[in-house]
Amino acid sequence: MTDVPMTARTGPKAANASTGELLSGYLTAQAGAFLRALPQAVGEAGSRPGALPAGGASAAAAAGTEALLRAVRRVGGALHTFAAAFDRDWAAESRTELRWLLNLLAQEPAFLRRSARLLAALDSLSETDPGGPGMLAGHTGAPKARALLERQLTLARTRAHTTLLQELRSARLHALADRMTLLASDVPLLDGVGGQPGDVLLAQAAEAFEALAAEARRLPLSRAATPYGGEGLHRLGAVPPTREPEPSRARGSEVDADSAVAADDAPWHRVRILVKRARYALEVCGAPEPDLDLLDRTLHRHQEAADAAVTVATAARTPRITPATAYVLGVVHADQRLEVEAARYAFGHQWPNLATGLAAGWGSLRSETGGATPAQRMA
Amino acid sequence: MTDVPMTARTGPKAANASTGELLSGYLTAQAGAFLRALPQAVGEAGSRPGALPAGGASAAAAAGTEALLRAVRRVGGALHTFAAAFDRDWAAESRTELRWLLNLLAQEPAFLRRSARLLAALDSLSETDPGGPGMLAGHTGAPKARALLERQLTLARTRAHTTLLQELRSARLHALADRMTLLASDVPLLDGVGGQPGDVLLAQAAEAFEALAAEARRLPLSRAATPYGGEGLHRLGAVPPTREPEPSRARGSEVDADSAVAADDAPWHRVRILVKRARYALEVCGAPEPDLDLLDRTLHRHQEAADAAVTVATAARTPRITPATAYVLGVVHADQRLEVEAARYAFGHQWPNLATGLAAGWGSLRSETGGATPAQRMA
Repeated sequence: MTDVPMTARTGPKAANASTGELLSGYLTAQAGAFLRALPQAVGEAGSRPGALPAGGASAAAAAGTEALLRAVRRVGGALHTFAAAFDRDWAAESRTELRWLLNLLAQEPAFLRRSARLLAALDSLSETDPGGPGMLAGHTGAPKARALLERQLTLARTRAHTTLLQELRSARLHALADRMTLLASDVPLLDGVGGQPGDVLLAQAAEAFEALAAEARRLPLSRAATPYGGEGLHRLGAVPPTREPEPSRARGSEVDADSAVAADDAPWHRVRILVKRARYALEVCGAPEPDLDLLDRTLHRHQEAADAAVTVATAARTPRITPATAYVLGVVHADQRLEVEAARYAFGHQWPNLATGLAAGWGSLRSETGGATPAQRMA
Repeated sequence: MTDVPMTARTGPKAANASTGELLSGYLTAQAGAFLRALPQAVGEAGSRPGALPAGGASAAAAAGTEALLRAVRRVGGALHTFAAAFDRDWAAESRTELRWLLNLLAQEPAFLRRSARLLAALDSLSETDPGGPGMLAGHTGAPKARALLERQLTLARTRAHTTLLQELRSARLHALADRMTLLASDVPLLDGVGGQPGDVLLAQAAEAFEALAAEARRLPLSRAATPYGGEGLHRLGAVPPTREPEPSRARGSEVDADSAVAADDAPWHRVRILVKRARYALEVCGAPEPDLDLLDRTLHRHQEAADAAVTVATAARTPRITPATAYVLGVVHADQRLEVEAARYAFGHQWPNLATGLAAGWGSLRSETGGATPAQRMA
């Protein structure tokens, strides 16, 4: 990361372009990417047999789906951060529909990745090569645990695939495609917004970053900064209270492992969403920030490991499994929670530098725009 | 740690005293401590019911046993490092008998500590307090796993206790006590050794340190230096080949989890022994090195966690346990292996500084003594 102030980093694009040029340029491009990727993603889903094993051809053939997800996230993020530039109802509806498609599209690849992650972990843990045996080398429960995880994840993926195939033919998707077609040709900015200077958008991007910084300050980073603190498995709840009570908390002192883990992960997952929003907001301003991409990847790793741990804990509750199978699942579960801790540790080292650097940049920007809030500028 | 060279650190004691004064002074004191602690330790063992639960009164009442273990380790270490000063057979026999008593005495307290460690870990992992729930909060398998571990460790401790009570009345212990009585009054140095200058002993202590440094160089410290490398659970065997092939290696490519873990831990356990030898050798020279005490504690933690992990893996093979119990044991096993990794990480940060500092000290000593090896000086 460099120490160049934000206004210098953003280069001439945000400084010289109008709000309309920046927002329209970005959304037109992303909506176009959406429309190009949609038929490809539909084709990929249709040509993919539902019960194909994890990995292999289907993973490689998901480029259209990936491109579609990419566009969906960016349009949704821009409509959230720069909501003041659009009709409120139109932006909210668009975001709802994009979120629906995101959830629909993301599930099958997520199950594929989770399957690959967990089977690789299990194979590695039970590796019997004398040069690099794992902690479960040759354990009798390993093949059964592997078969169990593979079966359950394949089933989940097949269900997600079936749902996807149905919804790809739905009127709801057609309506969303129409919405994106309109966006690709004419971005519906509110009157008077388009002519404002581009640094209005930068100020709004700064607000997105401040929302991220505020949420990141609530993370137990001092705990995560100590490697092998041992707290990760032992004291999940040692985080500041979450803004909205989790379901488990509403139940009072009755805490089970699943809800405790979910409450522990929730603030990190929220920060991940805020990282993405700040990242896309800076893209809109023509000031992409590579360190935000790094944070996004770190928190992606965090989410993947946390989700994988939940899958393992669920699999361990399957009736009639053998104790050996359950034992192996216990080790794999702890291993995935360790990956969660590793991602938090990485975040704890990546975030402070970025936060300081970006905050300094935003500070200089703020003084240049006279301290006016974006809402005031837009009004 | 300070940067004072070793010869300066050792102060006047090794520089001004003769080999005989240093060795006799140390061994007389330690043998005296042995003789004072022995009846107390015997009394403690006799007054301790075999099946007393872990912790509580028995742990507090083991001060005599601790003092006895302390003296046994120090006499044995000194006889090893400064063997050239004594009759070869006498020193070897004495060390064999001291090792026998060490193994005999150490078992029961070790099972006590292991029980306390594992039950605390399990309680912590299954803690349901909303402010700090563990990864296994309220898991149904936790109480059963706890009862199983407690039962097995109590049984092991009771067996160790019975053996100890028998051996404390044995002729073998009486003979060792007689040997220590002689040592307390007259340390049997070889002719001509006692009058040599004290820095001969320092040179021998330097050899003990060099043996430690050589073994420490074989440790996979670069791996241990990366927190959450994930290799700890996944690639146990990724260490340089051990000097003497482990049993598992002799069997060729057939590796199971227990032997793989044992082979992975073995070099660390060897380093722990060498740390103790170097530590006691410096004590003999009147130059105690606090950083070696720190390393000793770190490797003690390593050993305790590794032993606890073995206990959990063994418990998980108990016939007819429930899958929920086995699952919890899997998590606890991984948690203890994580503690092993944490201790290695700590060692990887403590060792290099100490190694550099001490090696510099030994280097200056070596040049002062004209580069002669201790064997040459003793001859």
